[in-house]
Amino acid sequence: MENVFEISLLMDFYGQLLTDRQYEILDLHYNNDYSLGEIGEQLNISRQGVFDNIKRARITLNGFEEKLGLVKKFSAQKRKAQEILKYINELNIEKMDEDNKESINKIYEGITEIINDI
Amino acid sequence: MENVFEISLLMDFYGQLLTDRQYEILDLHYNNDYSLGEIGEQLNISRQGVFDNIKRARITLNGFEEKLGLVKKFSAQKRKAQEILKYINELNIEKMDEDNKESINKIYEGITEIINDI
Repeated sequence: MENVFEISLLMDFYGQLLTDRQYEILDLHYNNDYSLGEIGEQLNISRQGVFDNIKRARITLNGFEEKLGLVKKFSAQKRKAQEILKYINELNIEKMDEDNKESINKIYEGITEIINDI
Repeated sequence: MENVFEISLLMDFYGQLLTDRQYEILDLHYNNDYSLGEIGEQLNISRQGVFDNIKRARITLNGFEEKLGLVKKFSAQKRKAQEILKYINELNIEKMDEDNKESINKIYEGITEIINDI
């Protein structure tokens, strides 16, 4: 059973392969914290219908991840980038000359971009 | 029209969503340089059958990329990581103390891993 964060990540990666209705329901529930009852009211379907849609959509998303593993791959990259950021923060840049300081700044900015884009 | 490298990349990302037959044919043609005729002989289907399979498989792969854009996303990350590597190579590490040198080495190794894993 994945947590809300994991489902959100699966949606980011594979959400466009769901039906519009499935995507809408998952988005309301996991990204906007609507209850099943509230979604049912809004979309004029039964609570059970909402539940079934969520269940099917989650099975679909997990199926794509089992086959492609791209969330796992991206997450590993992100962890590596975060580790690199830790090493950058450990640098004692006071002792460096201006050219080195500037390059370190660019390295820092680049790594931060990689982390935020994943 | 994608080149062989791009098709290979699409296969790395979305190949598991093709049929086994489609994957096999694309793999023989694009990763192992078999001609359509050679594949047809090996799999006991017509050259036209091979051609049709390749065409359909490529449409499928492109469809996944159009919807998910993950090859594009990963490629952008790789370019960023390569740019960071360039800045690392520009550092004048001769002037640094041992602690800084060690951290720079770890940063270099981490970035190289990110580039190679994409």
